[in-house]
Amino acid sequence: MNIAVAQSGGPTCAINASLVGVFREALRNPVIDAVFGSKNGIEGLIKDDLTDLRRVIRTNEDMELLRRTPSTVLGSCRVKLPAPDDADGAHIFDQIFSCLEKHRIGAFFYIGGNDSMDTVEKLSRVGKERGSDIRFIGIPKTIDNDLPVTDHTPGFGSAAKYVCATVQEIIRDSSVYSIDSITIIEIMGRNAGWLTASTCMLRANGETAPHLIYLPEADFSSEKFLEDLAAEKAKHKAVIVAVSEGVDPDCGDDMRSGVSDNFGHKYLSGVGKALELLARDRIGCKVRSIELNVMQRCSSHICSKTDIDEAEAIGAEAVKAALRGENGVTMVFRRLSDSPYVVTIETADTSMLANKEKRFPKRWINRAGNGVSDEAVKYFLPLIQGEVDIFMNNGMPRHFKLTD
Amino acid sequence: MNIAVAQSGGPTCAINASLVGVFREALRNPVIDAVFGSKNGIEGLIKDDLTDLRRVIRTNEDMELLRRTPSTVLGSCRVKLPAPDDADGAHIFDQIFSCLEKHRIGAFFYIGGNDSMDTVEKLSRVGKERGSDIRFIGIPKTIDNDLPVTDHTPGFGSAAKYVCATVQEIIRDSSVYSIDSITIIEIMGRNAGWLTASTCMLRANGETAPHLIYLPEADFSSEKFLEDLAAEKAKHKAVIVAVSEGVDPDCGDDMRSGVSDNFGHKYLSGVGKALELLARDRIGCKVRSIELNVMQRCSSHICSKTDIDEAEAIGAEAVKAALRGENGVTMVFRRLSDSPYVVTIETADTSMLANKEKRFPKRWINRAGNGVSDEAVKYFLPLIQGEVDIFMNNGMPRHFKLTD
Repeated sequence: MNIAVAQSGGPTCAINASLVGVFREALRNPVIDAVFGSKNGIEGLIKDDLTDLRRVIRTNEDMELLRRTPSTVLGSCRVKLPAPDDADGAHIFDQIFSCLEKHRIGAFFYIGGNDSMDTVEKLSRVGKERGSDIRFIGIPKTIDNDLPVTDHTPGFGSAAKYVCATVQEIIRDSSVYSIDSITIIEIMGRNAGWLTASTCMLRANGETAPHLIYLPEADFSSEKFLEDLAAEKAKHKAVIVAVSEGVDPDCGDDMRSGVSDNFGHKYLSGVGKALELLARDRIGCKVRSIELNVMQRCSSHICSKTDIDEAEAIGAEAVKAALRGENGVTMVFRRLSDSPYVVTIETADTSMLANKEKRFPKRWINRAGNGVSDEAVKYFLPLIQGEVDIFMNNGMPRHFKLTD
Repeated sequence: MNIAVAQSGGPTCAINASLVGVFREALRNPVIDAVFGSKNGIEGLIKDDLTDLRRVIRTNEDMELLRRTPSTVLGSCRVKLPAPDDADGAHIFDQIFSCLEKHRIGAFFYIGGNDSMDTVEKLSRVGKERGSDIRFIGIPKTIDNDLPVTDHTPGFGSAAKYVCATVQEIIRDSSVYSIDSITIIEIMGRNAGWLTASTCMLRANGETAPHLIYLPEADFSSEKFLEDLAAEKAKHKAVIVAVSEGVDPDCGDDMRSGVSDNFGHKYLSGVGKALELLARDRIGCKVRSIELNVMQRCSSHICSKTDIDEAEAIGAEAVKAALRGENGVTMVFRRLSDSPYVVTIETADTSMLANKEKRFPKRWINRAGNGVSDEAVKYFLPLIQGEVDIFMNNGMPRHFKLTD
């Protein structure tokens, strides 16, 4: 049989490693013939736009380079499939199944976040209704770490490693002048505070900063924020604040809407700038805000070896799950121990993950709502361990590119 | 005799390596007793706030760690000394020379940019007028690469390496969706386009992006910018633009002042956001802007080995220059050859560098004013070569911290 794989949602450092995991495991299995890559996620199946991956990933070196390349080599999409019982949408599923059958695809692997798991769930449901024996398997990925069931998501560890390394460098940068300053760092994560909270790992390196950590899972009040800043300013010359993009700055419609109207932030963003304005207005010292922006999700040059290795392993396990007949499942990590760090890879019914969010646990947030506990440090630390040796060319990292 | 060293201006990845160069060379020379670090640049001499560096840099490992640590370990300042002939300012020089004499300091090394060279020039002038035999030596550093005489400045190569690696990752990130997009990346450099222009090195890695490069040394018109974008959009799905913070966006007072009024960018900044608004308004596709912000000057985790080695070497040569009696000079690089890359370290009269800017050569800018020539690639490439093995701790880079 043939198989197909696609990538969906926002880029990460690890999503190509999971693709390599699927590909490499397929090569090991004589029952699998062609491995197709579907371009731009599910769009490739709808439009019958597939690539024979053996033609583009030709050597072991190609595989090694691809697993070190950020973003999605096959492209991505944000397509939401129609409800299976919506008659108007039936033709979409007709196109997808026609493409799968035409290419004798026996298993389809979708690497993505909670929206993508919705796609896997719908495809497996429609497949069963249509009497198809094609297997649909979800492979998780998101820097937001907001998928339920799984201990963590591939892509998160590398994002957290980049964020910690960068925040530590910003701490050094912020402490050079003899004047007081406040630096507000806005970190991604949508409605979940995982990535912002991960900056607590800097404690393991002896840093006292970030002095304040604000997550969407805790209540936020701008007056309390100003009090927190004043208290930290009394203790530290350079106050460092980590704030999640999902925090509602609650500082008056004028300031918040000023940000969104003028700058059209239609995605969650702008809280750092809003808090900068507020602090400058009310505290009166040097205040700056920094958005780590898309660099958080694609900085493969400082990816986590643990993350990349796990991302490849979970892709390989997905192939094994399909070959043993599983369908409508998503691969998940189960953690057996923090130290030594031990995880197993299992399957979970995709309906348990599709369209669901796992938020940062309230029990790890302090009572003041401006910091996280050492329990969180223990959870996070194993995920950023190890460095991947990056292939360099002319002093810059080399990236794999599709030449097909 | 004793010597003293201080750091000034904005942080870089290499400024501590130059300090290590001074320190290590001093240890090799039996005529030098104590090596003092002046806290917060020249402020430390004014306030008699010195640290005996042998007490805080205790081992070879400390030196190795410090040369891998970004920003300024002794702190920095933005102090401009009074004119030597200004009677009102004489007490400042009295304080400085009294501190130097009290600690029997025979040579003072100031690591900084063009403003800091102004300090070196004034101190050496006042010293000569007062009959002092203290030597004042400038050691260049700035990510802006805007110092005259010297081929390039320590700190620039590491910043350029970070910028290229990051822009390359943003290129990967931008190309995932099937819709058209424009990504505008704002890069530091004050009035000089060196760091922005350095993104041309991505050509050596086979990248066609950035498709447009705008520098403050070329004329900029917003109408021409929109035409350029339209032309590139016809050729590329994801258009990447590199723009220097020093470019005047020239897109109507409303838009520019909207940025500065609401967001109080008192430093050069905001051109990326202004151009984003303009492009979104007039081109009508997905447009985003990204500020690389302070990460450009402190990302030691991906510093250039060439840069760090040279920064240490130029610090060491400064000590040798002082010992052979030079005074009022700044250390400079002279490039003998691009390939193989050969530089020598020489001295230049500090007055040739103080308060002066070297801008990106117009001959390397294309006629359309939106790109740079391959001559620039040849100039830049040697400066980002090689990787420093970073000391890691708990999955994050280790930084040296003053414990005194």
